[in-house]
Amino acid sequence: MVIVSKQNPVVKELASLKEKKGRRERGTFLVEGGKMVSECAESGMEIVRIALRATEERDALTQTPLFRSFASAPVLLGEDAFKAVCDEKTPQGIVAEVKIPQTKIVPPKGRCLLLDGLADPANVGAIVRTAAAAGYKEIYLAECADPYAPKSVRASMSGVFYCKLMRGTREEILPALAGVPLLAADMDGEDAFKVRPPEIFCLAIGNEGNGLSDAVRRRADRKVGIPMQAPMESLNAAVSAGITMYLLGYGNRKEE
Amino acid sequence: MVIVSKQNPVVKELASLKEKKGRRERGTFLVEGGKMVSECAESGMEIVRIALRATEERDALTQTPLFRSFASAPVLLGEDAFKAVCDEKTPQGIVAEVKIPQTKIVPPKGRCLLLDGLADPANVGAIVRTAAAAGYKEIYLAECADPYAPKSVRASMSGVFYCKLMRGTREEILPALAGVPLLAADMDGEDAFKVRPPEIFCLAIGNEGNGLSDAVRRRADRKVGIPMQAPMESLNAAVSAGITMYLLGYGNRKEE
Repeated sequence: MVIVSKQNPVVKELASLKEKKGRRERGTFLVEGGKMVSECAESGMEIVRIALRATEERDALTQTPLFRSFASAPVLLGEDAFKAVCDEKTPQGIVAEVKIPQTKIVPPKGRCLLLDGLADPANVGAIVRTAAAAGYKEIYLAECADPYAPKSVRASMSGVFYCKLMRGTREEILPALAGVPLLAADMDGEDAFKVRPPEIFCLAIGNEGNGLSDAVRRRADRKVGIPMQAPMESLNAAVSAGITMYLLGYGNRKEE
Repeated sequence: MVIVSKQNPVVKELASLKEKKGRRERGTFLVEGGKMVSECAESGMEIVRIALRATEERDALTQTPLFRSFASAPVLLGEDAFKAVCDEKTPQGIVAEVKIPQTKIVPPKGRCLLLDGLADPANVGAIVRTAAAAGYKEIYLAECADPYAPKSVRASMSGVFYCKLMRGTREEILPALAGVPLLAADMDGEDAFKVRPPEIFCLAIGNEGNGLSDAVRRRADRKVGIPMQAPMESLNAAVSAGITMYLLGYGNRKEE
């Protein structure tokens, strides 16, 4: 049966996940597009429900390993109803509703990241993507944009499935980092090319416009910066986070 | 005199700069916001005309060094007319019309960048920003998004004023790079942490989705990649360009 009405409860439930309120109420988030949904399934995340645009080549799609492994039949949506649940402007024919992992804030097991008030979901997503690639698999998000917002999930390119995301206030997060060397990215910090961090450390990244919060700045053991030629004073937040993550996580360690 | 009508020729001329066609016809581009306009003036770019929102504190603004050094009086625009010329959603009270430098495609004098079919103006801008900071002051743009589009100018955070931007087709650009070692960023390339480039070289960055063009791939002397932990396969284009620029331009050179 194909659901055509945008007023259908299933459509309304899925569409509510585009907003923070809906995600909080249902405890789930949206994953859009075939590649992302497959990777989500492979990563072991719990898929609650899959919706397909009814005009797609359903037969071919439902023969894929993803579907054969998935117990419930997908929900079929008409064109308008499907568009209503998607955040992308030109959506592919598939979305999944996925459980948001209930993650307690615990101390890190390896090098980790603390996002300190990042406000832009696309930046949060791009940073999660880099973190997954650079081996920062535990990410603390202190008062940041929601990493499960559609824009952030998309920018993370599956990184959000592979990192442990721990969200909370600074008061909740900083105690879990007690005893962990905290290196904070800061324009005026030491040259990141020269810093040799220990095996377990936490890299803190501040807000796009205002940088680090006072609480994180006070707690930081060292500040690390990227050298820049005048008159440039800063880099894009995701770019500077990426450079710092790779320098501390990969490059500098190799020379030891 | 305050211009109120959006049909006023001056307003139409300025508004036309939001589109590629308008920029090509007038040979100018828009710079928005006080900080960017000041930096533009300081960089030595040729400002053709300045427009102010008539509701601003004009007297204070026109006492700044920028205005005292600027010969013609600023154009004053009413609220609606001002909004019509701005690209930003919440514009500050000032925009400048600035001459696009007429730059011939010539061989580089130092380390330089070749953007090979970058499609997203925000990526082009973010990369120009990093390039200016990392000392890649000559940038070849082969069939890329327009670096003078408002989105790109904004993302470059003044980088666009400080880099020499040479735009053309691959057929026009590659001959100017004859004899220059060409290192191309590529997922499957050598580990960028281990590559020691010479003093003058060109780093090529490919399109967001499709990577390098065949022409640039064939011409490349080496391919360099960023190590990534599975299952991540790629990074955001601006992030990966930033990491590679800094590794080749700064980090690796220090160890020589």
